[in-house]
Amino acid sequence: MSVEIGMGKSARRAYHLDEVAIVPSRRTRDVNDTSLAWQIDAFRFDLPLVATPSDATMSPQTAIEVGRLGGLGILNAEGLWTRYDDPTKLLEELASLSDDSRRTRRLQEAYAEPIKPELISDRIRIMREGGVTTAVRISPQHTLELALEAIAAGVDLLVIQGAVVSAEHVTTSGPTLNLKQFIADLDVPVIVGGCANYQTALHLMRTGAAGVIVGTGADKWATEDEVLGIRVPMATAISDAAAARRDYLDETGGRYVHVIADGELQTSGDIARAIACGADAVMLGQPLSVAAEAPAGGAWWHPMASHPKLPRGSYVPATSDWPLGSLETVVDGPADDPNGWLNLFGGLRRSMAKTGYSDVKAFQKVDLVVTR
Amino acid sequence: MSVEIGMGKSARRAYHLDEVAIVPSRRTRDVNDTSLAWQIDAFRFDLPLVATPSDATMSPQTAIEVGRLGGLGILNAEGLWTRYDDPTKLLEELASLSDDSRRTRRLQEAYAEPIKPELISDRIRIMREGGVTTAVRISPQHTLELALEAIAAGVDLLVIQGAVVSAEHVTTSGPTLNLKQFIADLDVPVIVGGCANYQTALHLMRTGAAGVIVGTGADKWATEDEVLGIRVPMATAISDAAAARRDYLDETGGRYVHVIADGELQTSGDIARAIACGADAVMLGQPLSVAAEAPAGGAWWHPMASHPKLPRGSYVPATSDWPLGSLETVVDGPADDPNGWLNLFGGLRRSMAKTGYSDVKAFQKVDLVVTR
Amino acid sequence: MSVEIGMGKSARRAYHLDEVAIVPSRRTRDVNDTSLAWQIDAFRFDLPLVATPSDATMSPQTAIEVGRLGGLGILNAEGLWTRYDDPTKLLEELASLSDDSRRTRRLQEAYAEPIKPELISDRIRIMREGGVTTAVRISPQHTLELALEAIAAGVDLLVIQGAVVSAEHVTTSGPTLNLKQFIADLDVPVIVGGCANYQTALHLMRTGAAGVIVGTGADKWATEDEVLGIRVPMATAISDAAAARRDYLDETGGRYVHVIADGELQTSGDIARAIACGADAVMLGQPLSVAAEAPAGGAWWHPMASHPKLPRGSYVPATSDWPLGSLETVVDGPADDPNGWLNLFGGLRRSMAKTGYSDVKAFQKVDLVVTR
Amino acid sequence: MSVEIGMGKSARRAYHLDEVAIVPSRRTRDVNDTSLAWQIDAFRFDLPLVATPSDATMSPQTAIEVGRLGGLGILNAEGLWTRYDDPTKLLEELASLSDDSRRTRRLQEAYAEPIKPELISDRIRIMREGGVTTAVRISPQHTLELALEAIAAGVDLLVIQGAVVSAEHVTTSGPTLNLKQFIADLDVPVIVGGCANYQTALHLMRTGAAGVIVGTGADKWATEDEVLGIRVPMATAISDAAAARRDYLDETGGRYVHVIADGELQTSGDIARAIACGADAVMLGQPLSVAAEAPAGGAWWHPMASHPKLPRGSYVPATSDWPLGSLETVVDGPADDPNGWLNLFGGLRRSMAKTGYSDVKAFQKVDLVVTR
Repeated sequence: MSVEIGMGKSARRAYHLDEVAIVPSRRTRDVNDTSLAWQIDAFRFDLPLVATPSDATMSPQTAIEVGRLGGLGILNAEGLWTRYDDPTKLLEELASLSDDSRRTRRLQEAYAEPIKPELISDRIRIMREGGVTTAVRISPQHTLELALEAIAAGVDLLVIQGAVVSAEHVTTSGPTLNLKQFIADLDVPVIVGGCANYQTALHLMRTGAAGVIVGTGADKWATEDEVLGIRVPMATAISDAAAARRDYLDETGGRYVHVIADGELQTSGDIARAIACGADAVMLGQPLSVAAEAPAGGAWWHPMASHPKLPRGSYVPATSDWPLGSLETVVDGPADDPNGWLNLFGGLRRSMAKTGYSDVKAFQKVDLVVTR
Repeated sequence: MSVEIGMGKSARRAYHLDEVAIVPSRRTRDVNDTSLAWQIDAFRFDLPLVATPSDATMSPQTAIEVGRLGGLGILNAEGLWTRYDDPTKLLEELASLSDDSRRTRRLQEAYAEPIKPELISDRIRIMREGGVTTAVRISPQHTLELALEAIAAGVDLLVIQGAVVSAEHVTTSGPTLNLKQFIADLDVPVIVGGCANYQTALHLMRTGAAGVIVGTGADKWATEDEVLGIRVPMATAISDAAAARRDYLDETGGRYVHVIADGELQTSGDIARAIACGADAVMLGQPLSVAAEAPAGGAWWHPMASHPKLPRGSYVPATSDWPLGSLETVVDGPADDPNGWLNLFGGLRRSMAKTGYSDVKAFQKVDLVVTR
Repeated sequence: MSVEIGMGKSARRAYHLDEVAIVPSRRTRDVNDTSLAWQIDAFRFDLPLVATPSDATMSPQTAIEVGRLGGLGILNAEGLWTRYDDPTKLLEELASLSDDSRRTRRLQEAYAEPIKPELISDRIRIMREGGVTTAVRISPQHTLELALEAIAAGVDLLVIQGAVVSAEHVTTSGPTLNLKQFIADLDVPVIVGGCANYQTALHLMRTGAAGVIVGTGADKWATEDEVLGIRVPMATAISDAAAARRDYLDETGGRYVHVIADGELQTSGDIARAIACGADAVMLGQPLSVAAEAPAGGAWWHPMASHPKLPRGSYVPATSDWPLGSLETVVDGPADDPNGWLNLFGGLRRSMAKTGYSDVKAFQKVDLVVTR
Repeated sequence: MSVEIGMGKSARRAYHLDEVAIVPSRRTRDVNDTSLAWQIDAFRFDLPLVATPSDATMSPQTAIEVGRLGGLGILNAEGLWTRYDDPTKLLEELASLSDDSRRTRRLQEAYAEPIKPELISDRIRIMREGGVTTAVRISPQHTLELALEAIAAGVDLLVIQGAVVSAEHVTTSGPTLNLKQFIADLDVPVIVGGCANYQTALHLMRTGAAGVIVGTGADKWATEDEVLGIRVPMATAISDAAAARRDYLDETGGRYVHVIADGELQTSGDIARAIACGADAVMLGQPLSVAAEAPAGGAWWHPMASHPKLPRGSYVPATSDWPLGSLETVVDGPADDPNGWLNLFGGLRRSMAKTGYSDVKAFQKVDLVVTR
């Protein structure tokens, strides 16, 4: 599907999740006969749900609640919960600001506060006490500095995530993270990303990561596209990464690296589409902000929104009808609204049932149409 | 027209009804020399009109009126008219609510009331007394339980309709409906759906159904797409089902199963487009809600809007200029507005005349263009 | 460019005028070295401008003014000027109505008044006294009845126009117009239309018409598409008709039938695009309504908006900044607004100059791109 | 990528900058290891930034400031600064007008004032005293008359720019500019444009120009498309011109003519996209109007907006949150808003780093996708 932009410059046509839709097949299935179970490394989850490490939605408490509901909550080890003893006041202050540019500046200031490594340990301890699988996110730039702290505190999974991450970072100023060697030396499994094309996904798989995050922060709530011009529509990005997963499985004779979709996800239908394109699990941020437990009171911002020099996302205030329900209602229903914002995984389950599939892995093969 | 979404994932480009338009040919015809007559099984209709079994538009009285105007009204055997002796008050209460989420919750509560089988018989009796062809809709889940009640009451046609129906429903919990055997054992003809692709349409035709409904509730008024990610644009869905009709006609040596389009239909132009794509008749819901006789006072909701856990449609309140006219004006004109909402079948008739066609079956061959 | 809508149903992708744009070439030209002259039959015009026979814009006086400015004004012989001695009051009343549906109903009532044949003669006489080429529009249905009246009054050109016209109208009720024979018997040249595809255009050319109108009333101001589902995007319709012109020229050894584009025309850029697609002249309605001389005080409606049973266009009230200028300013400039609504033919002239062309016929060959 | 508009009329599908996006590759790079340096003829710049010669953004002072920040400011030698001793009052008056049409008329009047050649010398002298590379823009029509004045005043670069410029201007009224001969006789390098296709770009390169401007004034702020129907979407126009650069480099055995993109540029992401399509530098107008130093107080108009007979752009008033920052903040950051309007070249730098590129020339090869 290569098209000619101009003489000597070609490009592939790539597709957004909302440009594709699922086609029913000749079989339907009882919704009670479906399973959404997902396992990555030794960790088993009832739902293919990974929660975005945004301070708007993930506090130690909500990470525990996501775990109890069957998903994986990730705390940002470089976020407000590791810079402040108690960021509650700060979150309230942000909610009270009425001007877009003041909100962005306040976010930038808030994240200029240094990280307190002891808080990382403390937060991980709280989550472990919650009895769930624990995970924290560290940026590639700070991995060498902060990862050991997290591991020493007993974190189960390490998430190394930046807007755009590669297996080969070039720098002339000081040491750089060698992902492959770093992961080989670790005892805990690593999820790494974001990436957005076949080759980067394959190279990241070859670092030994257990999972690869697909998506670079360019959707309705993030402005990577406006600021950097970088964007790969998610339906294409996910299926390219799924192709890398298949080829890597073949070249290793059986190592299965999970593809986690991050971006363009708002409704239960979007989740179904992401799986249908080849994702093993979805990373949800904004969709969880409508829950009553969301620490920022219904507001949402992408982790990139606080960048000190080049913010790439807005602080989106809570809507007047917040909350739409508890986190459990958001994830598991029942829904009392028709927009696909509640009962996110009940929607996925029903989508699988109505097209005759019984598990997430098989549902990756469902037929799609391009709808516009 | 297969495109590559990503490496290893292809999809067909599918078309919405509003992406296609009819092309005039070298001949025109007098509008009085056209026929819209339609016959399914032994039942003959002046218009290729089937009314959606939504409580917003179909009461026993309006079903009779649709029959008098030349179409087929269908009452929902699992709707408000079979759960309440008189749902009038309830409809008025719904119209008085001003908040979207309260409306959805009220719909869910209203449909939680158990079905009273004796009301099914009673409603069918009233419609029979109206002197028209009678039909009721039953869901696949409740067919075994409710169909005999309806048949015993003398219904002429049985409509087995769910959002997505297949000829092969798999379940591990209890008995399931074997459509083929069920239809073979019945004396009344069955219309079944919805479906959205060639193979499912073909399999449903092979169950012995007299008609197949195409469409799965994903359009302007239903949110199957947002909630389940399932959507096949209607121009493609209809023409695929028409291809199944042709192939089934060939494999049976002459059994013609009718294709009834359900979805993306608002104006007379949409009706013409649906026929032009291969439909034998259209199923209209929202377009009939603008009529003075509509039982919900101009409001509209898709039958899926009341699902207890996963509603997939909004209660759309009446507009301030409701009613636009009587049901007769809506169906047969004359129109005094230019939007294609009145004189729905006069518009179809004129579309056929202006492109030189004299009957609905021939009009399925008219040329189309893709307009965007 | 045929695409598959579904199995067994294909369609061409057709293009709207606003989907194409003109590409500059390696040459530019002085704007004073361009000619917009146009000649049809024995009648020569300074501008390739034909004014739509809508009562909103064409009165006998404005038709004269269009002629003085170098174009061809057409009066509707079945419009208000031939039904009422003085429609001024009626036009004022229409302008005073504030409700869309009342306007449509008032239009329908106004056009229910019978045509007074003596007014046709009278109006033609006035236009002749204005010293310009005269033309009236008659519908195909009333051609046999009204054409002789117009010809007897000395009209120069006869325009037989309906929404969709073919060379072969089939009817079982009474006599029908045989265009070919009718035109052969006439002394005045005939312009006929609208049509929208190659074959119909070719057949209309074979009737002996001097010009063929391309377009069937489906654009921003007319609702043929919503009401009948009929629409051929204009860039495609015009170039198909231009292909018919070329083939007819070849089959007749030199008879050149003019292609007059009618639809999707608002700005000077649209006019340039229509010529670039192959039109010899453009038929303008709404663009002339912004002129101070417009008889309906800045309002616009498509001639189909008054249909008694199936109106296909709205009465669009004057904007608050009406008038934008005199008819001369609209047609010839100078413009003091940047939207392409004034100096319509100055814009065309400059478009030709900037791409190196010196006359309208050659400009039909300019390169285009599809811009979305 | 040629498509058939209609029978006998084909067109290429052309792409806008906002239809393409940059794809990350398998490598990332430290943002401090990137260079944005650009050199044209003997003049070296830290940034590939050329400022549009619009009076809204370029005064002698702001041209100096652009130079200090590392770019090339261009003063319009036919603008307000060479017609008025001090246009400040006039700019204030324009900002105080509240009506679109009055603004356009006032612009037309303002530019009707004759050019004072001595002011050209005076403005160039001031800019030279500012210690930066100096450039003025002259229209092709006035080049013979005004260029020597500018050169005598010591201008470093001459920019001959019109909306659509070709190497071959045809006129029957008086002498015309022979670009090739004119440039050959000059001592200062010339940048010429706009153009929008391969052939014109190649012919302009053959005149001996040092740089060619790509773009003809058809974007969000200019109405060339509405008024003339002329528009080549910028992603295609830029890559076609880049192909001409490559072929001209080959035919001359090494003369490299710079491609300067002008149009569809608002955000830092747009700048990255333009370079990715093959541009060597970008010409920015509106994006600089948000700076505190902008002479028109935050307003913006395209140079074509003041055309006496056919204006092709609106006066866009300042937004209420003007200014967004100093010119330095706009160009170099840091940004405190997430929309890509500030830190324009920091965004470009980071886009290159995140996709593994270290200089602008290499970044022209980055992979693109078509995103809609």
